[in-house]
Order: sequence, then C-alpha cells, then structure tokens
Amino acid sequence: MSIEKRLTDNGIILPEAPRPVANYIPATLVGKLLFVSGQLCLDQGKLNPDHIGKIGKNVTVENGVSAAKLCAINILAQAKAALGDLESIKSCVRLGGFINAAPGFTALPPIMNGASDLMVAILGEAGKHTRTTIGVAELPMGAAVEVEAIFEVK
Amino acid sequence: MSIEKRLTDNGIILPEAPRPVANYIPATLVGKLLFVSGQLCLDQGKLNPDHIGKIGKNVTVENGVSAAKLCAINILAQAKAALGDLESIKSCVRLGGFINAAPGFTALPPIMNGASDLMVAILGEAGKHTRTTIGVAELPMGAAVEVEAIFEVK
Amino acid sequence: MSIEKRLTDNGIILPEAPRPVANYIPATLVGKLLFVSGQLCLDQGKLNPDHIGKIGKNVTVENGVSAAKLCAINILAQAKAALGDLESIKSCVRLGGFINAAPGFTALPPIMNGASDLMVAILGEAGKHTRTTIGVAELPMGAAVEVEAIFEVK
Repeated sequence: MSIEKRLTDNGIILPEAPRPVANYIPATLVGKLLFVSGQLCLDQGKLNPDHIGKIGKNVTVENGVSAAKLCAINILAQAKAALGDLESIKSCVRLGGFINAAPGFTALPPIMNGASDLMVAILGEAGKHTRTTIGVAELPMGAAVEVEAIFEVK
Repeated sequence: MSIEKRLTDNGIILPEAPRPVANYIPATLVGKLLFVSGQLCLDQGKLNPDHIGKIGKNVTVENGVSAAKLCAINILAQAKAALGDLESIKSCVRLGGFINAAPGFTALPPIMNGASDLMVAILGEAGKHTRTTIGVAELPMGAAVEVEAIFEVK
Repeated sequence: MSIEKRLTDNGIILPEAPRPVANYIPATLVGKLLFVSGQLCLDQGKLNPDHIGKIGKNVTVENGVSAAKLCAINILAQAKAALGDLESIKSCVRLGGFINAAPGFTALPPIMNGASDLMVAILGEAGKHTRTTIGVAELPMGAAVEVEAIFEVK
C-alpha cells in the first residue's frame, strides 16, 4: 500500500512544513540519512492549549499521546518537503522523544507510543525505528512533546 | 583479545536482549552504523530498587555508576542480538547518557563514566566514543540512568 | 571567504581543544560524518560564573545566548583538532542543544540561536543545520548550555 494511501486511510492531512525562522533548517540529507529537526506538537502550525504544559500535571495522558502523534505528523511533513515524496523513505531509523513530564511522571513510553504508532501506521514495517524517550525539564513554547527523527532513504 | 574473553574476564554475562513491547525496535543497521535504542539500567531484565529514583537524592553516586554500567551492558546485549557477533563491531561511535539527577546534582560525568568505562573494558580502544551527558527530569519507570548508542560495524 | 578569515572577522580565537579526562573522545569520524561530543560553554577552558546556573533564574537570557555561542566555538575547536583543517567541513548536519532552564523558562530557541548563528557566521550557508533544542534538569558543572554536533566532511 502506498504511503499517501495510508495517510488518507488514517485521516491524516500533512500540514505545511514551516521553515524555521532562525539559522537552522528543518531537514537535511547526508548520504542516505535524512536528519529532521526536533518537531513540536503543532497542529496545522499552532500549539493547541491541550498540548501546552506538563504531562501528569495539566496535560492529560491522552493529550500527551496525541501530542506525540502530532510531532510524528510534522516530522513526516518535513520529510516530504525535503524529499519531495515520502515513497523515497526506506525506513525510519531513529526517533528521539522528549516528554515534558511533571515531577514524578515516569510513564513516558506510552506517551511516546503516540509517535511510534503513527510512524508504523503510515510507513508500515519500514516505520519501525530505534528510539530514546526521556522526560525533560522544559520544551520550547511549553510544548508537551518534541520528537526528532532520522530516516534512511532509498 | 576477543570481546567474548573480555566479557568473561570482567565477569559480565550479557542478558537476554528483550524485544520492545511497542512499535519500535532495539537496534537497526544502516550502512555501517548500528543505532541502539535507549537502554535503561535493567539488571537481567529487572530494575533493581537501588537503581530507581534520582541520583543525589535517593540513589547514591555508587549506585548511579553501576546503573550506567548496566545500561552499557544492555547496549552490548542489543548489539550482539542485532549483529550476531560483537566481533563485527569496529568502534563505538557515540553514547548519549541521560542521568536522572536530583535538583542541584551536577556531577554527571562521573556517573556516565560507568557506561564509558564498561565500553572500553569490553571493546578496548575501539570502545572509545564521543558522548553527551545531560541531567533529565524523568526517565521511564523512574530508572536512574538511560544510555543510547551508535556503533560502527566492520 | 575562508573559514579562518570568518573566524578572524568575527573576533573569534578558537581555544585549545581539551582532551576529555575520562574514557571518551571529543570527536570521531565515521565515513563522512564527524560526531562531536557535547561541549559545555567553557570560555578558553574555564566556566565563567555568568554561565553557571539556570537561564531564567540566575543566568540572564543575554548570558545564555553567549553561553550557547561558546559551545559552538568549542565544537569548532574540536572539529578543527579532529580534522586538522575546518575547510574540510562540507556542512553542519545537526546541533543538539541542551539548555539549563529554570522552571517555567520556555524561550529556549532564542538561547540556542547563539550556537546556530555562530555556526552560520563561520561556515556560511554550509553552517545551516538541523537542530533539536530541549530544556534539561541539570548539566555537568552546572553549565548553562551544552551543545553536541554532527558535521559532514568533504
């Protein structure tokens, strides 16, 4: 099944891939590796109030999972903008997950599953990746989740 | 000296390399680079109570160092499971160390040395790696240390 | 314009690239990728008191930006020591920025711009990189900022 069809089947419309406003770029291809900058849980370019703050405090687990999913969607949007076509992705190599965790909130992997599950839903077996999940002290704009990625291209 | 002999000489028995229960994988080879997912300080698959919590608060420095060593052992277990044989490792390229630090605990590098020293004890000069060590707010399951790795294979 | 000339024009004298005192190395080349260990905001090898602590608490935003710039300078010093000549850098692939953020301080990207801007000032368009910026709980020695890097070489 094509990646575009899987996006449609999952009801996902990739957002515009915003250009950073500072001296960095959203993605870069080096050899066969595509590095994607850390993506916040923006929803069509905006941070939903439900996705601002600390999971385990003012952000619910359910909203944390959807925040991680949004990060993964934004990663795919950046990959598509960089590559032209998601079909040129061979595999997702690594996701780095940064969870804005309230003190004592240690159930971080289920939050990060929101990103991992999306990647597999869209890329299939090729979406299975290595990952590292940590709880961070703060994230830009108070975002609940940030995720970075490395892909292998064909 | 062979890597297996160094493991024996150091009294290390690599644990079973557990498969993640979610949509990610413990290790993946891309070209000559082996990426290994963040490994917690599990001891033969279980988190020792001495290795749960924050270093500088309820986890001692000594237990923090042994926690970092366990992360490195689990990384080698995952590398062996992925490659079949640790002898195919050319070098350890990078370790990322995530220390569950109590507020004000900044002596993070000596903790991370538990992982770095193990890597060099087992891989010799090839075990010398770049590394980044940070203190994080929370880790999965309250683990004291998490370490991720990239290796180069022959 | 040469990289050395840009360093001079920006008034930057690269410091001695210190060797780590533990079992790790400051930089390693794997294929075309140069990995550089996380660098603290040392100024000619010492941590300025203005760059110790948490940004948004006892470290000002201005000092946070200069701390991030120092990290980038130290990264270039390590790259030069590893490669012999900065002219062999093809591009900066990725910066990972770790900001020692006071609780509630979320304006992390402007701090990290201190590193990103330096990289572009010295490497030009080749200095534009992907990046991930997070707020961490603690950093070694209480440093305000730590930055790690990956470069592509020619």
